[in-house]
Parts: sequence; C-alpha cells; structure tokens
Amino acid sequence: MLSIMPETATTGNRPTILLDCDPGHDDAIAIVVAARNTELVGITTVAGNAPLGSTTHNALVMRDLIGVDVPIHSGAARPLVGEPKFAGHVHGESGLDGADLPAPSTPLDGTDAVSFIIDMCRTTEDLWLVPIGPLTNIALALRTAPDIADRIAGISLMGGGTFGNRSSTAEFNIWADPEAAHVVFSSGVRIVMAGLDVTHQFTATPDRIAAIRSTGGQLGVTLADLLTFFSAKYGERHDDGALIGGAIHDPLAVMALSHPHLFERVERHVVVETRGEYTRGMTVIDQRKVIERQSPNCDVLTSVDAAAAFDVTLEAIIHFTG
Amino acid sequence: MLSIMPETATTGNRPTILLDCDPGHDDAIAIVVAARNTELVGITTVAGNAPLGSTTHNALVMRDLIGVDVPIHSGAARPLVGEPKFAGHVHGESGLDGADLPAPSTPLDGTDAVSFIIDMCRTTEDLWLVPIGPLTNIALALRTAPDIADRIAGISLMGGGTFGNRSSTAEFNIWADPEAAHVVFSSGVRIVMAGLDVTHQFTATPDRIAAIRSTGGQLGVTLADLLTFFSAKYGERHDDGALIGGAIHDPLAVMALSHPHLFERVERHVVVETRGEYTRGMTVIDQRKVIERQSPNCDVLTSVDAAAAFDVTLEAIIHFTG
Amino acid sequence: MLSIMPETATTGNRPTILLDCDPGHDDAIAIVVAARNTELVGITTVAGNAPLGSTTHNALVMRDLIGVDVPIHSGAARPLVGEPKFAGHVHGESGLDGADLPAPSTPLDGTDAVSFIIDMCRTTEDLWLVPIGPLTNIALALRTAPDIADRIAGISLMGGGTFGNRSSTAEFNIWADPEAAHVVFSSGVRIVMAGLDVTHQFTATPDRIAAIRSTGGQLGVTLADLLTFFSAKYGERHDDGALIGGAIHDPLAVMALSHPHLFERVERHVVVETRGEYTRGMTVIDQRKVIERQSPNCDVLTSVDAAAAFDVTLEAIIHFTG
Amino acid sequence: MLSIMPETATTGNRPTILLDCDPGHDDAIAIVVAARNTELVGITTVAGNAPLGSTTHNALVMRDLIGVDVPIHSGAARPLVGEPKFAGHVHGESGLDGADLPAPSTPLDGTDAVSFIIDMCRTTEDLWLVPIGPLTNIALALRTAPDIADRIAGISLMGGGTFGNRSSTAEFNIWADPEAAHVVFSSGVRIVMAGLDVTHQFTATPDRIAAIRSTGGQLGVTLADLLTFFSAKYGERHDDGALIGGAIHDPLAVMALSHPHLFERVERHVVVETRGEYTRGMTVIDQRKVIERQSPNCDVLTSVDAAAAFDVTLEAIIHFTG
Repeated sequence: MLSIMPETATTGNRPTILLDCDPGHDDAIAIVVAARNTELVGITTVAGNAPLGSTTHNALVMRDLIGVDVPIHSGAARPLVGEPKFAGHVHGESGLDGADLPAPSTPLDGTDAVSFIIDMCRTTEDLWLVPIGPLTNIALALRTAPDIADRIAGISLMGGGTFGNRSSTAEFNIWADPEAAHVVFSSGVRIVMAGLDVTHQFTATPDRIAAIRSTGGQLGVTLADLLTFFSAKYGERHDDGALIGGAIHDPLAVMALSHPHLFERVERHVVVETRGEYTRGMTVIDQRKVIERQSPNCDVLTSVDAAAAFDVTLEAIIHFTG
Repeated sequence: MLSIMPETATTGNRPTILLDCDPGHDDAIAIVVAARNTELVGITTVAGNAPLGSTTHNALVMRDLIGVDVPIHSGAARPLVGEPKFAGHVHGESGLDGADLPAPSTPLDGTDAVSFIIDMCRTTEDLWLVPIGPLTNIALALRTAPDIADRIAGISLMGGGTFGNRSSTAEFNIWADPEAAHVVFSSGVRIVMAGLDVTHQFTATPDRIAAIRSTGGQLGVTLADLLTFFSAKYGERHDDGALIGGAIHDPLAVMALSHPHLFERVERHVVVETRGEYTRGMTVIDQRKVIERQSPNCDVLTSVDAAAAFDVTLEAIIHFTG
Repeated sequence: MLSIMPETATTGNRPTILLDCDPGHDDAIAIVVAARNTELVGITTVAGNAPLGSTTHNALVMRDLIGVDVPIHSGAARPLVGEPKFAGHVHGESGLDGADLPAPSTPLDGTDAVSFIIDMCRTTEDLWLVPIGPLTNIALALRTAPDIADRIAGISLMGGGTFGNRSSTAEFNIWADPEAAHVVFSSGVRIVMAGLDVTHQFTATPDRIAAIRSTGGQLGVTLADLLTFFSAKYGERHDDGALIGGAIHDPLAVMALSHPHLFERVERHVVVETRGEYTRGMTVIDQRKVIERQSPNCDVLTSVDAAAAFDVTLEAIIHFTG
Repeated sequence: MLSIMPETATTGNRPTILLDCDPGHDDAIAIVVAARNTELVGITTVAGNAPLGSTTHNALVMRDLIGVDVPIHSGAARPLVGEPKFAGHVHGESGLDGADLPAPSTPLDGTDAVSFIIDMCRTTEDLWLVPIGPLTNIALALRTAPDIADRIAGISLMGGGTFGNRSSTAEFNIWADPEAAHVVFSSGVRIVMAGLDVTHQFTATPDRIAAIRSTGGQLGVTLADLLTFFSAKYGERHDDGALIGGAIHDPLAVMALSHPHLFERVERHVVVETRGEYTRGMTVIDQRKVIERQSPNCDVLTSVDAAAAFDVTLEAIIHFTG
C-alpha cells in the first residue's frame, strides 16, 4: 500500500500553508518554523489553550517577534457544540505564561477567520491547512463552504494519538472540540496527523532550551523562557523520568509537510469518538490487521527524527534573530 | 411573570425578518405570508425537507410565483455534525411534489448564506431570524460570528414540541440537526418556538385548500395543488381522523411575529437532547412547577387562532394574485 | 382497541401480589393498602428512597405496625449498572423521617430477594409483581430466570410519566435505575404503569391527613405524622399552589390491580431512555396517532378517582387500627 | 510498584476455580486445562459465542470427553442490558463447529448458574471466578449478592485489551455485554485480565494442532478438528500472515492462576466504556505516566511464554487421553 505522503516530500518545494493556532507555547515554536519553512498565507486563531482573546494576542506578539508580514484573523471563541475548556494547567492563564512579552505593535487583520480560511482555500493553489489547536475554525469552514474540501491539498494537524493527555484516551485539541474533529476526519480531505505518539518524541529538554537561549536575541531568550515554564508545567504532571521536557507538539504538523523525510508514518482509518463516557475526544485508529478494516483516511505519523527536527527549529530561530 | 412577547405585538409594525427555509410545502406558504406581512430582507436555504439543490430551486420558483424582489442565498448542504436526512416521505423527492412548477427565471444571489446572514444581522436594525428548516445555517452563523447574538431582535423558529413527527419525541427540523438546534437554544438569543403543539392546530383542510384554489391565479392553483399532495402524504401517516389535512407548520413562525395576538404562549426553559437513543432531537421543555426549574429561554407557542391564521394566509395569496 | 385491563377488574377477586418497595412514605401507605386488599405473598426491599439498610428497616417497622405475617426479604443495594442515588430531599435521611418509629420486633426473613422473587413467580398462580421503587430486583430476577416472564400475570409498577420529578423528563424510580427499567419494559411482560400523571392526582391534602390522624390508633397517627413531613418536603419543592400535599404515588400501583375501576388508562408503547443527557430515565410514551407507532406494551394510567382511592386507603388504615 | 500477583504464583498450589464459559473452541481447551490444573468446583455457562442452549450443550459434551465429575449449571441467556449478539462467524452456528461431537451422556446439574455461583463464592475458601465469556453471570451474581465481592480471591477473566476483534476497540466478550463488564471492573474485586494483547501471542499453529492430533485419543483428535476449523475461521479474517492460527484465548485466564510464572503483567486502572459510538465495549486501560492516573484495579497480562503454555495444554490433553 502506497502512502499518501505529501508531494512536497519529493519535490522539496516549500509547502503553502495557512496556520490555524491557539498559542500556546508549542504554537509559538510552530509559528517560527512555519514562517521560515513554508509559504505562510495567513494565521488564524481559535480558542483552545486559552480563550480567544489571549490566543489572538499571543499570535500578534509572535508576529512582532519574528518580524514577518503575515495576516492574522481571529476565529471561533468556543467549540462547535460543546462547552469551552482551556489548558491553563500547562500554558498558564495567558496561554503564554513564562516570559515577559511586549504588547503587540500592529492590529489584528480581521475577526473573520472562517471567511478568511474559505477565501484562501478558494484562491490559493495547493494550500495545506495546518490546524494546531481545536478544529473549530476548520470545521466551520468545511460546513459553511463544502467546496473547499476538493480545493485544498490537505490538512496537516496536531492532535489525537493512541493515548491521551487530557484523559487516558484523548489528546487536548481533539478533546476540546470532538464534534469539529469529527467533521474534519470525515470530510474526505487528505489528513496528516501529528498525534501524541510522535509529539512525545520531541521534547524541550534542558539542552535544547539552552541551545535556543544561546542564540542570543530577543526571540531566542523569549522562547527559552517560555519553554522553561512549559516544560516544568507539562513535566510535573508526569511520573518522574517519564518525560524529559514538555512535548513540543505543534511544529511537527508543519514539519510533516516541510520536512516529511524526518517522519515515519502509516496509513490508517481514523474516526473521532464524540459520545463515550471515557472516550469522548479519542481518535479511534483502526490498527487491526483484519479484512473489515476500512480504507485509510489519514497518514498517522509514528516517529520523528527528533534531533533533526530540533535542528530545523533552531535554524528557524537563528534565521529570525537576524 | 411577564412574557417576552415581541414588541411588534403592541406596535403593529411589520417585523423585519430574514427567512431561512428548506421548501417544502409549508415553507412555500411561509414565503408568501412573509413577503406580504414582513420587511423581508432575504431568504436563505438549507438542506432539510430535500437536498440543498432542491430546496434552493424551490425557493427561486416561489420568488417567481409571487414576483417579489428579495435576495436568495443558499447555505448548508448537510447538518452541523450528523448525517444528512431528508423528508421525501411527506414532501416528495423534489421537496415540492404535487404541482407542475415552472423553472426559475432568475439566478441565485449567492451560495454564501452564512456570510449573508452574518452581514444582515450586523447591518439591519431589529432583525428577526425566522428559520423554518433545520437550524444549520443559523448555528454556523452564531458560531462563526458570536457578536450577532446581541445584535438581533430574536429567532422565531418552527421546530420541536412536546411530541414528535419523526420519532415519538422529535420533530423533523430539530431531529435533522440536533447539534445546530442545541447551539441556537443555548445561544442566549430570545427564541419564539412554533412547535408541533401549535402547528398541528393549523392544517390544510379540504375547505381551506378549496378556498386557496378559488383565488383563481397561478399562485393559488399551484399552492392548492401542493397542499393537496402534502395533506395526502402527511395525513396518510396518521390514524383515521387523527388529523384533517397536513399541518401547515412554517407560516406560524412568521405570524408569531407579524400577528402575535393570534397566539397563546408560555415562557419555558427549553434544551435540545443530542444524545438519547429514543430522544435525540427532542426539545426538552421544562413544564414542571418546581423550584429548580431554570429561567425561561423561549416563548413556547401553545395555541393559535387557526381561522384567523388562515385569513392571514389567504389574504397574502390574494395579494400576490393581483 | 381493547385495554389489557387486569381480569381482577371484572371478577372482583383480590389479586395475588409480591410488593417490591423502598419505604419511603408513600411505600408505607402502599404496604397498608396491599395488606388489606391483596393476597400479599411477600415484601422485598431495594435501595431507592434511602439506602437498602434503611428501606429494609422501614419495611420491618411497617409490618409491625399493621401486625400482618408476611415474609420480608432484602435485595439489591445498588442499581443494575449506574451509581446509587437516594431521595433524602423528600423522604429524609432515614427514608421515613417525620414520625417516632419503634424498632422492628421481628427479624428479616432473608437477604435474598431476587431468589425469593424467582421462587414466588415459579410457585404462585397468577402472581403480579408490584414494584414501587427502582426496578433493580425485578430486572435481576428477569435476567437470572427469564422463564418467570411467562409465569406471572404482570407487573404493576409506580414510575415514569409524561413529565419528571427528578429531572424535567424523569421520575425518581426510573431515573434511579434506568437500565433496570429498560429490562422490565422490554421484557414482554404485561405492564401497568402508575406514573406521575396519575399519582400527582392523589395527594396528601391537609384534610386527608387529618382524616387519617382521626382514626386514632398508633398506625393512623404515625402515618399522619409521616405524611405531614412528606407533604411539606414534596410540596416545598413546587411553586405556590401548584400541588396541595405530597403525591401519594405508590398505593396506586396496588389499587390499579385491586380497584381497577377507579382508573382510566390507555394502551401505549413505552420504552426507557438510558442514554440522553437531559432524558436519561425518561419513560418515552409513544402518544402519536401515526401508523409507525409500535404495538402497546403497557397500560398507562391516566386518571384516578382520587376521592375513592382515599376511601380505600382510609378503610385499610381503619382495618388495621382494630 | 508491587504486582497483585495471585498468591498461587508463589505457593504452587492448584487454585480453586469456578469456570464460567460459552464454549466456543478456545473455551473447550480452557475446560481441559482447568480440569487438569485447578480444583474445579463447577462450570457455569452463558450465552456468548453461541446461544445459551448451544454453549450449555457444548460444556456437557466436553465434560464427557474428559470424563471428569464436575457440576455444570446454565445461566444467562442474554446480556445484562443490551441485545444478544453471537460469534457464529468464528465458532460456527453450534459454537463448536468443526468436529463430529457425540450427544451428552449426562444431564445438566441446574439452570440456576447465578445462585450456584453465589453459593460457591460463599462456601468455598479462596475461590477464583474464571469467566471466559461475556460477564453476564458474574455481574448478576455481584449485584444480587454483593457480599461475594469480599469473599472471593479474585476474578481472572479473558476479555478486552488495547485493541479489538469485534470492533477496532472492543474484544468480543466485553463487546457482547459491556454493562456486565462495567459491573465486574468496578466491583473492587481483584481482577486479572487476559486480553487480546496476550492471547494473540498464543495461537493454534499447524504444528501445535498436529501435536494435539498426535496424542491419538478421541479427545486429541476432536480438539485438533475443532482447532483446525477455528484457526481457518479466525485466520481468514486477518491479513495474510498477520496471525498464524486462531488465538487460543481462554485457557490463558486459567493459566494466569495455575502457571502465573509464564506471564508478564502490569498493574493498571481499567474501566469499560459502555457509551461510545466507536468504543462501546472497549476496556480503557490507563497507560499514561501521569499524576492523575487512578489506582490500579487490574493485573493486565502483557506477554506469555507461548511455548510453555502450549506444553501445559498438551500435557492436560494427554492426561485425559488416558
């Protein structure tokens, strides 16, 4: 069975992406990596790690820090159907606790993320959507304008996995809006999934944080401060030694497109459980080797060359340190 | 306890409305009544009684028949989360079986109903949304642009009730998209609900169909043909004598605003069940006289002066017969 | 359509019953009525209004008060699947708060209610099971010994209705063990259902409590004290004037067999919702007059001659006052 | 963290067990292994791989084949709450397709498995319940007589796992009665779980079937015929080469007690999902290394020395071949 690996893997071209995010510490890294390694047509924000006001503020701050000119539009303030739930326990109340951040210097480009996403999908060749927060904006766009499903190259998302970090079965992004995730996974669009199985392989170890800090500029120092806070928070929830440093989840959904050779992946049929008492928000990945298994709808990333992924990350930080 | 009765009840002003519909035989009547008795800023269509292509086609046909100049935008082709389900068993495959309908003479004004709804909500004073199909478009608008909740006068909808017509507990419009209905009922917006309790009081009896036919023009004859088909279909599903003529559900959601004095209503807290095995799509109306009852979020219509409502309907048909 | 009215209605014979209860104030009345008007082969207890220890203790106390020789066996301490939930808010912590009750004078006959029920069903001609608490014991008996379904005359239960008293849709007995109720309602056994629609017609008004007190003996005074407490508790949860006195639910499930002419009833298909967010524990009664309605499995009591039912109650109390 | 490994592991004593089964090909092997390696106080049957009549018949046949004197009682004909579902696709209609089996020579000892289980739990020192079918009988016993939870040594069951064989998440025994499984896993009783993770390591390879056949007696030839049928059926549902031979699930729940040194195990908190759309019947095993993980309630077997397990199996067959 051939993999549905993005063509960018073989051509080496920079993928064209729209980044939908809820910064969030690892989202901040993803923005840096995306700005360096992709044609970034825009950033949209969504409630998730923190309320929409905070995630939008944080995206504006990150744009300042890297000094790029990319439009930012805010989107959904709450999930498609369920109640809002945030992740202050790992990201702090602001979504980006741990560093002394300046106020944004430029205004938001719009509060109409869903329309912006629809427009970009209709007008951009080979666009990848890269959602790294709850999938609310993407689901709203797919239901409002179903034609975009056939227009885009695919969706590379951070979320899900064979285990959870908000419950024993559910990862935060999917758990925070399971109905939206169901819309995305059942949309027929090509999906690449960077779930916890792979993101827990890419952590902010003390060595890596030190390397980022040693880049010397405001960007590196700020990111190092942020990752120090995040690693402590994410790590303290784990057993001693179970995880060295917080998992830098989100940039992997970008690198899965820009540096696909760094990943191993398997094709699987994945559905999202919206109903269970213990399993709401679980990505149900059919791993069985049986005849009734359904056709794959998803490239599930299973491993990453973490050292190389960190090299990509560090290079991007250095690039924007100028 | 004072009722949240629309102010139009006392002022006698024509309410300003946007009609969201899935024609559908009773939707056709609602379009006629709305065009005559309200400031109709637009019509949006949604999949429901029939697939979106059909309901949109039927809305265009109805615009021709009454000869009014109102924009029509098509919207959601499927429910917010669940699978599409139609109502061919009462409306026929076309959604408007039973009459020989001409092709539309003018094109659709847009396929962007959700954006159109959001724009109208933001730019129109005291706008009422009047959804008479599944609530998908309205839910998408509320989630995409939550600011509209505070901008509009309210939502007067046809749906729900203390009993069902698709299951023993669920009425078709709510049953067809329970998650969207949940978004609407939990939105904080003032809601007027024309459910089966009141719509089953307003039926297309043979006498009424004959009165419509006797208006003599193309509009009256067409509507009489449509209602004859619909009454036979809706009626044949009921026990002998249980219902004389099909229930003309949809215009009551319009008249609840334009002719509020024709209705009795109670204020209730209403929620939508999305989970049950036998109750998915049920509007759970708290009727208890107990202290833990929650504050009302809905004016539930309980009875209608059916003779007067038919007079309003007939007058509108005669008006457009010219 | 002919009703499946118990044959006892026409013959006037005393029905043979096994009373499964969770006393509970209205259970206490039911025990008195059953001891007077039926061949009572035994009493079994279940957790419900209070924990099993309390409901069993209370059944023993009531046996003493009326001085009859009937075996009492305790049964299930918790629901079939769900978590235990009690009704201290209306019955007090003891299940029978409000009177100064003596300790039981005789021991429990067994702690094996399910086996006792199965044995009685197998060895007693035309036995009716009369469960007036959560249906756990009955469900366990039906699943452990499915042959009993064909051996018994039927099940006359207190529970359910078109509205709720624990939620807007669910009555306490069904709400407390919906899975057990599902087993009972889907068992194929003839069911008579005394739900809130009828039991709220039979309340402990001040006049009725006074009449009970005026019977003069320990039984009457005790029951009057109990009903005074219960009416205050049940009543205070309702709006002013909405309900005069607490509903004496449970004896109606007995009288539905012993005095069937006091009731009006309709035959309906009833299922129990176990899944809903707002409807778990609802008895879904198909009231529609439509062709796809399923065959009735239940006689739903819709009204009672409350004055006559109180006469039956008072006569029973006087009988045991001696 | 110390394992709650059965004490039999260290003492070498033969465990005292009651085997609850639904033969079933692998159940047949489990009966042979249990009769040889445990103090087998009784066999109870349940609907599962086939309807109750068939599984009971098959248990009687197996008793004849090995010639032991152990009482057999039949139990639940259908699940605690859900609808009956069988496994004819792997076991054939009879539950033991594939061999020419004689009629039973002795009658059933009773149809009251639940009472028998309760009695045995109350009168037998250090009894292990070993359920290798749906957990209906065990759940009924625990709910009918909750005192047994504290009287028994534990429950060693075949069921569950980190993947499924009836759905992508659910193993057949749990899937067939999730509510019963919930009762067992939440009972507070010590549980040893032989799930698919370990049972798929112990398959009926052609070599092993040949070894069984070469024992020469009626027992060996019959079991070899049965396993040939079962391996073909179970295997043909898997991808080529994914599984060599059908998984001999059930005897591992016996050997986990009689030969615990053959297994590796981890202690985990396990709950049963009863609600999910895709996950109903899943054993949710909390594998996370996080602080909010709940205390273990289960020894989850993770690997088996399959060669040694087969030696135990073959020795038991030879023993009864005489």
